[in-house]
Amino acid sequence: MTEAPDIEITAYDWVPDMARGKVKDLRVRWALNEIGLPYRERLVGNAGSEKSTDHLADQPFGQVPVYKEGGLTLFESGAILLHIGEKDERLLPRDRVARARATAWMFAALNSVEPFLQALFLVDLRGSGQAWHSPAKENLRPFAENRLRQLSAVLGEREWLEDRFTLGDLLMIDILRTSSQQDLVHAHANLSAYVERGTARPAFQSAVTAQLAAFERGEPK
Amino acid sequence: MTEAPDIEITAYDWVPDMARGKVKDLRVRWALNEIGLPYRERLVGNAGSEKSTDHLADQPFGQVPVYKEGGLTLFESGAILLHIGEKDERLLPRDRVARARATAWMFAALNSVEPFLQALFLVDLRGSGQAWHSPAKENLRPFAENRLRQLSAVLGEREWLEDRFTLGDLLMIDILRTSSQQDLVHAHANLSAYVERGTARPAFQSAVTAQLAAFERGEPK
Repeated sequence: MTEAPDIEITAYDWVPDMARGKVKDLRVRWALNEIGLPYRERLVGNAGSEKSTDHLADQPFGQVPVYKEGGLTLFESGAILLHIGEKDERLLPRDRVARARATAWMFAALNSVEPFLQALFLVDLRGSGQAWHSPAKENLRPFAENRLRQLSAVLGEREWLEDRFTLGDLLMIDILRTSSQQDLVHAHANLSAYVERGTARPAFQSAVTAQLAAFERGEPK
Repeated sequence: MTEAPDIEITAYDWVPDMARGKVKDLRVRWALNEIGLPYRERLVGNAGSEKSTDHLADQPFGQVPVYKEGGLTLFESGAILLHIGEKDERLLPRDRVARARATAWMFAALNSVEPFLQALFLVDLRGSGQAWHSPAKENLRPFAENRLRQLSAVLGEREWLEDRFTLGDLLMIDILRTSSQQDLVHAHANLSAYVERGTARPAFQSAVTAQLAAFERGEPK
């Protein structure tokens, strides 16, 4: 008989089809799978529904995932990944310089790449079918295109952003693959190949399977 | 005679008046000042001008700051702050739980708050005077308002986001104070007071003075 895992992550019990496999607990499952750490799931109310007071106490923005381990309750997937990375050098190198470089890519993914893609997602979400949609999109698209061009240039023909896979790649790949602006990502053959390399990893594949299984269990019977 | 500091940060030699005191090297100066660590400056080409190949090799997105120390070249202000925080518990608590919580607020500032404010900045920047500006702004504003309302709720009447000042506060305050959407921030009295508390710190004040002094030296004579 195995003991219950020490680590708990929250996930939603339901999201629309288009979001399945893309909710942010996936990147935490992926990281834990990379180092073979078991975890238990706690399913919280559907995305978009009113958030319980308990969940808001754990996650001020009412999102997933929340990560619990012993006395630690942690939110923000970037911070959760960093915490997990400190457990195992396969995610975050122990060498001081290599470790700092990996964290630079984590922050780059979350603050220099994702926001410009996300702005376009918000414009699509709120503007679809309205007169302002097309000009807003045309005016904001160059910011995202510029960041992806810069990212493509620095990646070049390398396999990963530094000389080995790190949490910087895990986060960057998860952001690129889940963006609603796939045409912008796939405008760069090396970024497409980079996403394919990352998502071919067994730890990623089993993370997707686990997230989809949670929705199955959450489905009204 | 004192030795030259080991730490080098880059800053711009010129930016428009509206950006002075707000460029992102400020948060790194602020953190170094908090723990009394000296640094030297390297001024790079004006913001908006063509970036040199050397600078792009250090900073793939052509921005400031770049941080150098020994064999380490680091970009992304979040990663730089994290690296500095590991030097001194006044910035980042040594306790495992408290440290992880502080990093959660760093990521929250950069990924859960700033992007929604920045989307409005981009809409203003590109849309001002155009027909799409007002409807785009009205449709995207609620996302930023929601995050600020959630932030205000979790801060409540406390002095800092956790029980003491950390890099999470430094980064959140710098993002709130430099946002172009000051009306949204100041809609919450406790967020206004929080920004005032942070920017009253001597380490912040001397960081502003140092950034402005660099523009003076960079000014065409």
